[in-house]
Amino acid sequence: MTDSLGIAVIGAGYWGPNLARNLHASADWRLDVICDLDPDRAAALAARFGGARPETDVGAVLADPRIDAVAIATPARTHASLACAALEAGKHVLVEKPLADSGAHAESMIEAAAANRLVLMADHTYCYTPAVLKIRELIAEGALGDILFLDSVRINLGLIQPDVDVFWDLAPHDLSVIDFVLPDGLRPESVSAIGADPLGAGRACLGYLTLPLGGGAVAHVHVNWLSPTKVRQMIIGGTRRTLVWDDLNPQQRLSVYDRGVDLELQTLDGVERAEATVSYRLGDTWSPALPEREAIAVMVGEFAASIREGRAARTDGAAGVRVLRVLEAATASAADGGAPVAVRIPEPVS
Amino acid sequence: MTDSLGIAVIGAGYWGPNLARNLHASADWRLDVICDLDPDRAAALAARFGGARPETDVGAVLADPRIDAVAIATPARTHASLACAALEAGKHVLVEKPLADSGAHAESMIEAAAANRLVLMADHTYCYTPAVLKIRELIAEGALGDILFLDSVRINLGLIQPDVDVFWDLAPHDLSVIDFVLPDGLRPESVSAIGADPLGAGRACLGYLTLPLGGGAVAHVHVNWLSPTKVRQMIIGGTRRTLVWDDLNPQQRLSVYDRGVDLELQTLDGVERAEATVSYRLGDTWSPALPEREAIAVMVGEFAASIREGRAARTDGAAGVRVLRVLEAATASAADGGAPVAVRIPEPVS
Amino acid sequence: MTDSLGIAVIGAGYWGPNLARNLHASADWRLDVICDLDPDRAAALAARFGGARPETDVGAVLADPRIDAVAIATPARTHASLACAALEAGKHVLVEKPLADSGAHAESMIEAAAANRLVLMADHTYCYTPAVLKIRELIAEGALGDILFLDSVRINLGLIQPDVDVFWDLAPHDLSVIDFVLPDGLRPESVSAIGADPLGAGRACLGYLTLPLGGGAVAHVHVNWLSPTKVRQMIIGGTRRTLVWDDLNPQQRLSVYDRGVDLELQTLDGVERAEATVSYRLGDTWSPALPEREAIAVMVGEFAASIREGRAARTDGAAGVRVLRVLEAATASAADGGAPVAVRIPEPVS
Amino acid sequence: MTDSLGIAVIGAGYWGPNLARNLHASADWRLDVICDLDPDRAAALAARFGGARPETDVGAVLADPRIDAVAIATPARTHASLACAALEAGKHVLVEKPLADSGAHAESMIEAAAANRLVLMADHTYCYTPAVLKIRELIAEGALGDILFLDSVRINLGLIQPDVDVFWDLAPHDLSVIDFVLPDGLRPESVSAIGADPLGAGRACLGYLTLPLGGGAVAHVHVNWLSPTKVRQMIIGGTRRTLVWDDLNPQQRLSVYDRGVDLELQTLDGVERAEATVSYRLGDTWSPALPEREAIAVMVGEFAASIREGRAARTDGAAGVRVLRVLEAATASAADGGAPVAVRIPEPVS
Repeated sequence: MTDSLGIAVIGAGYWGPNLARNLHASADWRLDVICDLDPDRAAALAARFGGARPETDVGAVLADPRIDAVAIATPARTHASLACAALEAGKHVLVEKPLADSGAHAESMIEAAAANRLVLMADHTYCYTPAVLKIRELIAEGALGDILFLDSVRINLGLIQPDVDVFWDLAPHDLSVIDFVLPDGLRPESVSAIGADPLGAGRACLGYLTLPLGGGAVAHVHVNWLSPTKVRQMIIGGTRRTLVWDDLNPQQRLSVYDRGVDLELQTLDGVERAEATVSYRLGDTWSPALPEREAIAVMVGEFAASIREGRAARTDGAAGVRVLRVLEAATASAADGGAPVAVRIPEPVS
Repeated sequence: MTDSLGIAVIGAGYWGPNLARNLHASADWRLDVICDLDPDRAAALAARFGGARPETDVGAVLADPRIDAVAIATPARTHASLACAALEAGKHVLVEKPLADSGAHAESMIEAAAANRLVLMADHTYCYTPAVLKIRELIAEGALGDILFLDSVRINLGLIQPDVDVFWDLAPHDLSVIDFVLPDGLRPESVSAIGADPLGAGRACLGYLTLPLGGGAVAHVHVNWLSPTKVRQMIIGGTRRTLVWDDLNPQQRLSVYDRGVDLELQTLDGVERAEATVSYRLGDTWSPALPEREAIAVMVGEFAASIREGRAARTDGAAGVRVLRVLEAATASAADGGAPVAVRIPEPVS
Repeated sequence: MTDSLGIAVIGAGYWGPNLARNLHASADWRLDVICDLDPDRAAALAARFGGARPETDVGAVLADPRIDAVAIATPARTHASLACAALEAGKHVLVEKPLADSGAHAESMIEAAAANRLVLMADHTYCYTPAVLKIRELIAEGALGDILFLDSVRINLGLIQPDVDVFWDLAPHDLSVIDFVLPDGLRPESVSAIGADPLGAGRACLGYLTLPLGGGAVAHVHVNWLSPTKVRQMIIGGTRRTLVWDDLNPQQRLSVYDRGVDLELQTLDGVERAEATVSYRLGDTWSPALPEREAIAVMVGEFAASIREGRAARTDGAAGVRVLRVLEAATASAADGGAPVAVRIPEPVS
Repeated sequence: MTDSLGIAVIGAGYWGPNLARNLHASADWRLDVICDLDPDRAAALAARFGGARPETDVGAVLADPRIDAVAIATPARTHASLACAALEAGKHVLVEKPLADSGAHAESMIEAAAANRLVLMADHTYCYTPAVLKIRELIAEGALGDILFLDSVRINLGLIQPDVDVFWDLAPHDLSVIDFVLPDGLRPESVSAIGADPLGAGRACLGYLTLPLGGGAVAHVHVNWLSPTKVRQMIIGGTRRTLVWDDLNPQQRLSVYDRGVDLELQTLDGVERAEATVSYRLGDTWSPALPEREAIAVMVGEFAASIREGRAARTDGAAGVRVLRVLEAATASAADGGAPVAVRIPEPVS
């Protein structure tokens, strides 16, 4: 094992303790500092992890040469300035989702990371669950073939948030997962969003996102705070196989169906072609065993690995930007009655 | 029991035999004639029901004074001319869905029925299942309160139709049910539809319909021929209760949840209002027992009752028009990338 | 295709029409006669199948040289005498379950078949469903390893039968399936049965059968007429894999779990051995696709094949005897408060 | 609020920390002492709860006049001597299940409690879950009518225990719940048990218990360490309604079916009676909302309440004895091939 990396957690509120606990437990990391504007909160959290010292001054953290990286778990509106300062100070940066409060701010963070040749990682935790890691692997190895559609449903009786609508509250989970499993990431041609506020709560409490993906493929997301039943399900249809991820069924979270429609393309006119060559497969179903691993632990391991290997993290700043750009387009579309809005996703650098 | 009414079934193809079997078994009806252009087909079907004679000439049927009504089960493009001729000849008319091949044709049928003071009924069979009848009753008596949203999913590995897309193939079921259970019928402010043809089949194989209903409420329909799993589910959220109809769960088709979000409206500004007064109910769930009855039998009984009582059928011509107008708007919206398209629904006459 | 075989159906009551329909539709068979003591019933059923003539006299059927085989669908108490007469007359015999009204009668039928070198087949219809055929195949090829346990549940709100208890009404299904899938058939060391009649209906309305199978393995059957929920499930545990058959889940009737406990046997004392070498497998789950085929059609095909190939049918007379012997032992055990009762199963002839 | 009661937890191993955490959080209790033979373990646990002191000497605990009660969480073989010593010293006693290592030992504990007029309570934790409390309440108020049968299934891929068989490992949960919900407690006429050890593990790894309850009613328990699927389900059939408790379905743990068989008893002979008057109800299903409460917290509240009110705890020593007596009879029956074994349950005192 190489030496562990020094890290500071900035923000000791809701998510910071989860990060701190997993960083403390990881052999990759040495949790040196818990930083929070509230000295009591910083001290209480630091006390739980031997070796970590509390801090209230971010400047002192960034000036500490033993700190290799920071994990930012503060309110979203502060992410960009904190991250850019850390990157300027030579620290690698992990940021709680959403990466920033706007796509523009997120892009400034990417630029700072690139300029300083440092890792900027978005903590899209869900992507590091065993189920999503397996989906990504299956798609990458071609088990599903070309992706035809993704349909994601995330509904339950949820807390109506005071500051964000249901799209910004729930859809980041679906979008970051779709971004993670698609080989080229989330690159819709446009976004159509229709939200509804039937209770008059002042913001959308349920909504639908439709994302044409090019080549006739489409992604769709249904998010809803008003459903009495809880559903967490994604269907991913491909030319070879189709996958269903039912996150509320611990006994069979993933099902891969060797079942589908085959369409042989021929040089005939449209009608004959379709009539002549549609065929149906009704093959076996397969449910891969999944390991039991905590997603945050895998995520902090990926952060360390990307730093050591000098490569982008699997959920890098660009992934964070893609999710934000889709959410921004959704807000614009919803305000325009669902009219499709183009999304400006930066081209992959490679 | 009053005397039975004489009826002719026109069209002995796929659906005609189902109508004939139920009309023959009903004490309301006297099945007199099976009419089909193909004399063998007419004769074979008539032979199954003692007392019915085969015919190939529609004119002869319409001239027969013993015939009170006709049930039309021919291709959709022939519905309007056949129905109008029958109505002009003084016959009540039942028409297999879709009511016609266009909203304009369907409206001409309504006019002919009104001019002749006869019953025109759309055979929206699904509306007469015990589950849907119960949903209509629950909403009518206020058990759900005001309707906030309807979310319908109808997906499975389905036959790709050679002549219609997935909206016209599957969504009529969802739309006719929504029309049936809403007290004022299906009257969306607009229709947004996005279809996808990821296989290049020449028509949409999966698609999403979003229908703002006014007052912040919304209906949404997901239809899909490419799903390996079969789902037939509708969630109807109301201010008092929420209902889930799972048609593939014969042991508990309907669940009524006394669970939801309450929002007390106060004369405060928007943010305070929502923060102060959101509350959550987590009450019991209730699943009403449903009788075992064949929907077509109930439907032909409704046809007879509407004639005898001189009233509109529950699924009258206007219901058929509303469904067609939404489908036409969906086609227009899908062609325009999902932009919302206004729907021209005639006002209720009442 | 070889020439079809001539067959008569004896008994035109509840099950006879199903046999007649499938025999008529089969290229293996030529349905020549429908025989019933009630001439109208015989005539009505024969009229449905062109070429079949009605009969009321069994003697005439047995004397007809064009008849190769008879299918008996009369009350169980008449099976033995009818079958023996048919076998003496040189006809192959298929018998609706139960094979006879007692094990002794069933054995007389086997003797008559053997003496006349003819096929005697029990119509254990359930064994010819795609799911059970697949289970038999998986066990035969060793996919499950050695069988450790079989647990079968068949419960729902069922009709209380006037003449038989719940064991004789429902358990024949479970027992004939267990007999079919086990490589050596159903050969329990003993039978313990406890029935309950909590309503005072005069016979057991729910009951439990426990069947030690030798080598520590066990089969268990729960049958129940009083359950508000319907369950049709069998779990079959093996040393290599475990299988769950859920007959009410058409989307995933069979699940094969590569999951289980491994116990390495070592020459140590008992306690150490178990402690040292228990390990757990948590592998994938697999659900084989099953063809859509009607079980009776497959069954009548097996009857023809066994005749043509001069071999025992898969569900031969001996299978019928094994099921009856277990049921008789269950009755004896239940009368003795559940004390184990030995079962006299004839050895396989091999 | 009355003053809190002083308590010591004896045993700081697996279960003691759960008791300590809930006692510490309860306003009813003042957690004074953590006692364990291992001083480090006692100190570490005491340090987690401000105000508790570690001890290694039970005698010192029992001599402390501030201690009103002890909670015993030591190995089962030590329960009787510790509990009797505590009761002799004037302390109320709560004992982790099983109450003792034998029915005889447990009865000596009851005698000591009675002689000293102190509370002896069995920690049958499962009985204090919201679902089981609701079942008890429904039966007590007559919602199910007379109980006809209880069928409990508790199966999954479980750890093979080195020292106990599957009956003693899993069935105490089912038996203590059945004891809790039946108005007169668990009083079977006899016990039939068949265990199977198909892997040669040295003890039963799956087994079936059948318990005739008198009046034709019956309880049955299926416990299994070798099942690849996890099931936690109890069906309780009554003359008025039937209840299903599915503990793995958090969205609908309890379902109450107004569905069943009615049998009108008449003064006719047996056959006519049953034929004439069986009728079937197919009413609604109802799923009561359940509060979210931790069972141990409710349990320690019941311990305090029983002390303050000078009454027996809901799960008192007698309940613990009944469970042990059934387990002992099961062991005897299993050793005798499943023959029914009488159970000696003390009569209720009242």
